[in-house]
Amino acid sequence: VTELRLGVLGCGTVGAAFVALLAERRAEIRTRTGLDLTVGAVAVRDTGATRAVELAAGILTDDAAAVVASPDVDIVVELIGGIEPARTLVLSALEQGRPVVTGNKALLATHGVELLAAASSAGTDLLFEAAVAGGIPLMRVLRESLVGERVRRMLGIVNGTTNFILTKMTEEGADYGDALAEAQRLGYAEADPTADVEGHDAGAKAAIMAMIAFRATVGAGDVHTEGISTVGTDDIEAARRLGHVIKLLAVVEEDGGAISARVHPAMVPVDHPLAAVRDSFNAVFVVGDAVDELMLYGRGAGGGPTASAVLGDVIEAADHVARRTTGGLGPLADVPIRAIDDTRSAFFVRLAVIDRPGVLAAVAGVFGAHGVSIRSMEQRGSGGEAQLDFITHVAREADLRATLADLADLDAVERVGTCLRVVADE
Amino acid sequence: VTELRLGVLGCGTVGAAFVALLAERRAEIRTRTGLDLTVGAVAVRDTGATRAVELAAGILTDDAAAVVASPDVDIVVELIGGIEPARTLVLSALEQGRPVVTGNKALLATHGVELLAAASSAGTDLLFEAAVAGGIPLMRVLRESLVGERVRRMLGIVNGTTNFILTKMTEEGADYGDALAEAQRLGYAEADPTADVEGHDAGAKAAIMAMIAFRATVGAGDVHTEGISTVGTDDIEAARRLGHVIKLLAVVEEDGGAISARVHPAMVPVDHPLAAVRDSFNAVFVVGDAVDELMLYGRGAGGGPTASAVLGDVIEAADHVARRTTGGLGPLADVPIRAIDDTRSAFFVRLAVIDRPGVLAAVAGVFGAHGVSIRSMEQRGSGGEAQLDFITHVAREADLRATLADLADLDAVERVGTCLRVVADE
Repeated sequence: VTELRLGVLGCGTVGAAFVALLAERRAEIRTRTGLDLTVGAVAVRDTGATRAVELAAGILTDDAAAVVASPDVDIVVELIGGIEPARTLVLSALEQGRPVVTGNKALLATHGVELLAAASSAGTDLLFEAAVAGGIPLMRVLRESLVGERVRRMLGIVNGTTNFILTKMTEEGADYGDALAEAQRLGYAEADPTADVEGHDAGAKAAIMAMIAFRATVGAGDVHTEGISTVGTDDIEAARRLGHVIKLLAVVEEDGGAISARVHPAMVPVDHPLAAVRDSFNAVFVVGDAVDELMLYGRGAGGGPTASAVLGDVIEAADHVARRTTGGLGPLADVPIRAIDDTRSAFFVRLAVIDRPGVLAAVAGVFGAHGVSIRSMEQRGSGGEAQLDFITHVAREADLRATLADLADLDAVERVGTCLRVVADE
Repeated sequence: VTELRLGVLGCGTVGAAFVALLAERRAEIRTRTGLDLTVGAVAVRDTGATRAVELAAGILTDDAAAVVASPDVDIVVELIGGIEPARTLVLSALEQGRPVVTGNKALLATHGVELLAAASSAGTDLLFEAAVAGGIPLMRVLRESLVGERVRRMLGIVNGTTNFILTKMTEEGADYGDALAEAQRLGYAEADPTADVEGHDAGAKAAIMAMIAFRATVGAGDVHTEGISTVGTDDIEAARRLGHVIKLLAVVEEDGGAISARVHPAMVPVDHPLAAVRDSFNAVFVVGDAVDELMLYGRGAGGGPTASAVLGDVIEAADHVARRTTGGLGPLADVPIRAIDDTRSAFFVRLAVIDRPGVLAAVAGVFGAHGVSIRSMEQRGSGGEAQLDFITHVAREADLRATLADLADLDAVERVGTCLRVVADE
């Protein structure tokens, strides 16, 4: 049996859940792995505040730097969140050759390349399963199971708040505002929901997903981000009529030596496994050359699931310490980022037009002139104003944008309405 | 860079796909992991047969025992299938301290305990991701990500043939015979489909799932098995009316110090993520104390996905050889197996009854006498003969069976029809 002591930084929801989970599972973990893990120190900002977990005397401290530097700490578990002081503390631990487990997506998305390099030069582990999609073991599957696989693309529902809102809109006909208000009432959305609904949270996760899937230096700044605040009940209804549901997707793909990472709402066919991901659940759909299609589904947030992911990482790091080895991801390559204009997708486009002979020919001509081919068209309403709903075949984003601009200039087109990407087989 | 040579036993669909995949990914794997993996020998029964993959001269042999014993082979990859000679070869490799990667579910389900013990005493790896659910990384997630987790139960769709048949019956109204014939025409089912449709294939996988999830000495003989050959179009239709679909499930659960492992068709609510697993896809739904709900979805068979799983294991074994370490699962415990009579489930029960006053009271009285409570009831038809469809709350299997026996004796009951387990929240 190898005895190891953990220094835990932060004791909020996840920190408290982790400390409680470890205490509960300690004996069983010792039996299964030969590792006896105890919490040696917990650093918090205010040692006087009430905690959701009971800590032994002398464990609590407000000196996080001392915990990281303590020779009695074998593994550092960073659960503070945010960039600073987390970044300085994690770097300092790694530079001392101490493995770090973290669930900090913001830190990884902005400084992941730097931190992974620090871990690599110190010959120690930096593990962050909890940073993307909570309890879902995506990072381990990408790092280990799929290390030999060529991953082509991943489509992720990685933000529970927006998935809850879109589920309410889809299943109960709620409008965006009501669904958001309910999410806030239930504690799924914050008072200021911007980070969730505008896709920034999912964007940080997309950066980490791309970094690990493609072993590339992708950061949050490389991700194109659109949110769901513009999705209306008519869009939900149009999707339903066409056999789709609207989901906020984090899409990462590698093609022709360039990487695209983006977050946007998209229509997903109802028979696609991602369409069945409801409420605040998360899922990541992976397409690889040999493995074909793979999906991991689970809880994206919450104390228990996140603590479970942290615990899995802690046991891996501890096992490596006991065996004097490390994991390591291999080198990260500088791969060019594909501009959103150069990405390809199928699209749903809604046009309000004057219903008169020749309109469809004129509209179709504009699509054709930009090389965008139409997969299906449906006219709704007739008489004065009609509505045309198109789904295109896969097209270049810039060509679709140019098409929309020219359509807006057509006399017969009253308005270019919703434009949404559609998940389709390429 | 560490150079390692593989001895591959068997070169059928999976063997050939694995050899081709490794050749294609070798350079990238070397960059990512520092491991240079080559195939040193491929043992087959008939060296003159045509292969789906090109092999360098001098690689092919018909002497599998010599491959296993060769000092030039660092890792053995067993893809022969079946019990013998696979068991002898795998044991021999392990006893020499040589790690083994296998996709052999029959071998693991019948001799897994013995083989894992041999690997453990030799201090080497026995890895078998490909043995359950093909390309889905269930074994690694259970072994590593969830090593600290208390897994309560798993529900798996782990047989692609039966899932294809049930999907055809559900979505196209096909009857069992037609759906089976189509599966055979498409190569999803064998000429003798018994192993698939009677649940034996899924049963072997259930044994392995229970062994790894609960670290217990569970074997194929411990699994209660029922197949889908008795599922009719009226059952499919009844499920649909009640908002369910019928799936063949491998269920493993641990409760009160006993393990249940069983395979049977079950009604799954349409909004359960397993309901969206269509065609020949596989998925495993995991319920754990901290992680809550987790599902892994993907291809359960096929050369590419299975080869991808084998390659992931080979890279792990190779990494361990390079670092002079091993994985290891911890000790397996002898845990009692719960008899099927003592397991608990909700049930769907269909009765043909004579439609006259007092019948429902008599029937309900029989349920009540055995402590089985009714969640919902629907009467179909009236006049001479009517049909009563019940869904019960969760009940002990033996109590439900006793209820059915007593119902059959009621004068008003013409016939006890379908009885199917129902997936319900407990």
